[in-house]
Amino acid sequence: MRAAVIGGGRVRFVPDYKDPRPRPGEVLVRIKLAGICGTDLELLRGYKGFSGVTGHEFVGVAQSGKYAGRRVVGEINVGCGECEFCRAGVREHCLRREVIGLTRDGAMAELVAMPEENLHPVPDEVPDEAAVFTEPLAAALRVLESARVRPRDRVVVLGAGRLGQLVARVLALTGCRLTVIDRNDWKLGLLRGLGAELRSSAEGIENAADMVVECTGRPEGLKTALRLVKPMGTVVLKSTTAEGAEVDPSLVVKEVGVVGSRCGPFEPAISLLRRGLVRVDDLISSIYPLERVEEAFEEASRSMKVLLRV
Amino acid sequence: MRAAVIGGGRVRFVPDYKDPRPRPGEVLVRIKLAGICGTDLELLRGYKGFSGVTGHEFVGVAQSGKYAGRRVVGEINVGCGECEFCRAGVREHCLRREVIGLTRDGAMAELVAMPEENLHPVPDEVPDEAAVFTEPLAAALRVLESARVRPRDRVVVLGAGRLGQLVARVLALTGCRLTVIDRNDWKLGLLRGLGAELRSSAEGIENAADMVVECTGRPEGLKTALRLVKPMGTVVLKSTTAEGAEVDPSLVVKEVGVVGSRCGPFEPAISLLRRGLVRVDDLISSIYPLERVEEAFEEASRSMKVLLRV
Repeated sequence: MRAAVIGGGRVRFVPDYKDPRPRPGEVLVRIKLAGICGTDLELLRGYKGFSGVTGHEFVGVAQSGKYAGRRVVGEINVGCGECEFCRAGVREHCLRREVIGLTRDGAMAELVAMPEENLHPVPDEVPDEAAVFTEPLAAALRVLESARVRPRDRVVVLGAGRLGQLVARVLALTGCRLTVIDRNDWKLGLLRGLGAELRSSAEGIENAADMVVECTGRPEGLKTALRLVKPMGTVVLKSTTAEGAEVDPSLVVKEVGVVGSRCGPFEPAISLLRRGLVRVDDLISSIYPLERVEEAFEEASRSMKVLLRV
Repeated sequence: MRAAVIGGGRVRFVPDYKDPRPRPGEVLVRIKLAGICGTDLELLRGYKGFSGVTGHEFVGVAQSGKYAGRRVVGEINVGCGECEFCRAGVREHCLRREVIGLTRDGAMAELVAMPEENLHPVPDEVPDEAAVFTEPLAAALRVLESARVRPRDRVVVLGAGRLGQLVARVLALTGCRLTVIDRNDWKLGLLRGLGAELRSSAEGIENAADMVVECTGRPEGLKTALRLVKPMGTVVLKSTTAEGAEVDPSLVVKEVGVVGSRCGPFEPAISLLRRGLVRVDDLISSIYPLERVEEAFEEASRSMKVLLRV
């Protein structure tokens, strides 16, 4: 099959990659659209030493099983099915898990194999170009599961990139007092209309936020977050790639809670997309054919969401 | 008055230090016993650039006001009385606060001045040698306010030093499955009888703890805690001095909550001491007269609790 394969510091189109072989309980999904995420760009730089078919944001058509012939999106964590976390329904924390497009072949290809239980059907009202945002939107929704947001809270989102955009849009639905900080005016501009305060700098709002959501992925993001958060407030870290971030003593002095937040719930994400409560069409920078994956990655490193049509 | 004064990298006895002058709302307390805490040792090394009378753990006799003539202990944060935190009764987070023995003259002296509202009378059943532990015991109790401990939880305390001892003793009261880790056998030995698992190493219990309480004060403590905690578990940081601790990506991958925990509630601490539910007498290494404060600090750096009799 045709596939986009990562390895040795580059991504390339492979016209004759081996077809995936579904294991018991797994089905094949024929991919329609796949999205390039910040994590894909990190994989390119060697994150996790992964080589294989990249891609974990997709919409496609199930080839067999109970969703055969229907459009589906899919959760990316594949659990062992036996451990305490799998038994509790939290396969994203299975310690023996595989992750689609991160530790096993992913969605930037004609076909991907994954457990049927990971799939969610896409309602007809949701076009492919919106459905492909289900996975990152679910990750944004995870913020609301990671910590409590109260309508009177002042919440600051650091970074208006791909993830920050979705996090800000989800937070805006809570009625909280929202501030988004990014040095890039164009990115901030995409959030006009949310009713949020848009700032190019964190200066002057120290100790003011009940919650800060770190979406920059830069090590200094945690330091900024700890400066902006109120005593006894919460910092939500969304980026796995912010290695080397140092814990400030103010974490203890201010008794701040710092909580990691990763993958989120698909059904609520699909529901928000179906009801048009979170707009995503304005986040699409380009759509490339799979064959031009190298160009697509190149553009993704300096734009918003880039999609691949398979 | 006689006082122990910190400054220029050393602590020394001063026979004729200026008497404190109470401000409106403040009273004088004549100190009976004061304790040397890890923070005092840090102040000696230059932490916060403080110079003046050190000491924030004490029991003494109020010289005026509603507790005149009675034995008292005192909370160490002095708020502005006007900000959002002071109005909410959380003066320990007043952004303009002073702290007794850390930013203004403290308790290793004949007299200390502090707000009457910071004082708590000591019941007759509690001897001076136990009452002087009220402040650190309150800090240990703060762990139970910082995060929820459930009786079935496995809780790991890293470090069996002065603070770890009290944290472990408080946690043992919850019925949780408690593990304490320290390389020092003698320190661990003081916890025999708690029903806790005592270990000299963190090896072999990775991903096993619902909660880890970091009491070592060393930068690598956070890394160990993030290794031992379960996915979605909690790490409580008790040490302000662990500067340079790096955030591991596992904080996000495992969606761990890291929460800072500082000063705690005095009344519950006094109650536990009064009812004998937390033993502290075995933690006293020595009692020195104030005049021998240099020796006392020297011993404190390599033993458990050292007290000064004023």
